[in-house]
Amino acid sequence: MSQLVAVGTVAFDTIETPFGKTDKILGGAATYIGLAASHLNVDVALVAIVGDDFPKSFLDTLESHNINIDGVEIVAGEKSFYWSGRYHHDMNSRDTLATELNVLTQFEPKVPRQYQNADLLLLGNLNPDAQLAAIEQMNNPKFIIMDTMNYWMNTSLETLKEVIARVDAITINDEEARQLSGEYSLVKAANKIQTMGPKFVIIKKGEHGALLFHGEQVFFAPALPLEEVFDPTGAGDSFAGGFAGYLAKTGDFSFENLKSAIVFGTALASFCVEAFGTERLKEIESHDIQRRLSVLKSLMQFDIELH
Amino acid sequence: MSQLVAVGTVAFDTIETPFGKTDKILGGAATYIGLAASHLNVDVALVAIVGDDFPKSFLDTLESHNINIDGVEIVAGEKSFYWSGRYHHDMNSRDTLATELNVLTQFEPKVPRQYQNADLLLLGNLNPDAQLAAIEQMNNPKFIIMDTMNYWMNTSLETLKEVIARVDAITINDEEARQLSGEYSLVKAANKIQTMGPKFVIIKKGEHGALLFHGEQVFFAPALPLEEVFDPTGAGDSFAGGFAGYLAKTGDFSFENLKSAIVFGTALASFCVEAFGTERLKEIESHDIQRRLSVLKSLMQFDIELH
Repeated sequence: MSQLVAVGTVAFDTIETPFGKTDKILGGAATYIGLAASHLNVDVALVAIVGDDFPKSFLDTLESHNINIDGVEIVAGEKSFYWSGRYHHDMNSRDTLATELNVLTQFEPKVPRQYQNADLLLLGNLNPDAQLAAIEQMNNPKFIIMDTMNYWMNTSLETLKEVIARVDAITINDEEARQLSGEYSLVKAANKIQTMGPKFVIIKKGEHGALLFHGEQVFFAPALPLEEVFDPTGAGDSFAGGFAGYLAKTGDFSFENLKSAIVFGTALASFCVEAFGTERLKEIESHDIQRRLSVLKSLMQFDIELH
Repeated sequence: MSQLVAVGTVAFDTIETPFGKTDKILGGAATYIGLAASHLNVDVALVAIVGDDFPKSFLDTLESHNINIDGVEIVAGEKSFYWSGRYHHDMNSRDTLATELNVLTQFEPKVPRQYQNADLLLLGNLNPDAQLAAIEQMNNPKFIIMDTMNYWMNTSLETLKEVIARVDAITINDEEARQLSGEYSLVKAANKIQTMGPKFVIIKKGEHGALLFHGEQVFFAPALPLEEVFDPTGAGDSFAGGFAGYLAKTGDFSFENLKSAIVFGTALASFCVEAFGTERLKEIESHDIQRRLSVLKSLMQFDIELH
């Protein structure tokens, strides 16, 4: 089993949906990534930064899921990153009510020494400078995955391209793939992004699922159709965490195995959206995941005669 | 092998896309349905109406694909149904430039006697009164499929509901499923529509694929990711035609076989959009379809260990 290092935010979130509103709860990309990956019993370490206002109980939650937090820096006298958002009825659009970067502005990732030889590095959505700094601290990881968003394309495109050139896989949503590539067709967009570096391009389409591109090969995993999406926050990060966790667990970076990893990520994301924040990710157990994987399998499986 | 009766429009289309513009070409829901189903070598009959301005060469095209057109009424002194539309760059939105109903306003379907015992009846998107009239002329078909659109929900909801109550399967797009059911979640929408009659609900999501619901069972077929969508006209009807054709060919109306039928419909739709109008549907051959089915299979196939 390989080690997995996840670099990203650990933060406070306040979330409003048509179903209710939370207090300041545990959030951040690295949090969701870590919790999702923890369900594979891999050795996962978070690299993040928080202020000294961050409750010990939140950090305890992470540790109780066997997530290593030696790389989570706590800065005295500073406040933690805070995000607040409101989802509308269709859950596909949201208003950001507050983004307080706070301590995040001084984030310089510090990968703990005992994880610098990890096989897998997952760079959550973050300033590309921080993503680059994390890559520099690793000793030749076998597989690097990055997430990003349009904000960094608009503000730090050159550094972002440097990061993209150094990763094996990128997860990106459909609109961002179009923006990054200048191509409307997702097939063309994925091909163009592959020429920028990553051998694997994963295009996330939210409720419509995810596409994996690798050379001429394509795989599609639908999102699980749900009666109700309760809170979409963290779904993309849970997807990435489940995906990376599966790769860490199996140590197999072939296209075939990446397909399975994507289905695993899809399963974790489908749990994430069933309750506020990290609630479901914290409570699900192995048999829940197994059951969901078999639902996903039947969702996609068919027999047709090929002559 | 069962007979398939397809009731719908046979028409003139003029189509503009970012790639070019057509003259008045062969179009209409029943045309696409018939051509798609013809690739399964089933005995398919169209029930439609045209004016005497409709070129013999267009009807010859249908017959040359072994489509029975005894039920296509030609009305002297009348003009054929004509539709004209312009697609935008993203191909998901279009402006209707002209809709001239012409002879369609007097359409009273007449199912030829030799097809009234057909096992399969496919009701293309049409006035629900005409759909109902077609059902009345059939002698106990084994399986009825209907397509519809929001226009009929807005103008003829009561008759539409009568049709819905009498069919086995309905194909409907996501927005229309929401409108018809009053439910935002597609799972809830499909459940509600099942209580209105059809045991099978197929929700079409365009470039995002299609969902099949049946009781607690769900199946998802992604659309094939394409480098370029040339002209989306007729994609939904080609899907329905491939779907119904597969059912007619196999005579098996189980959930498992409907899954395969949906994949077959997906394959036909993916050809349809590669060129203007019916061009690709007319020229593809069996080996093209087989190759595409195997591409679709690899697009959806994965292996994951379930404990």
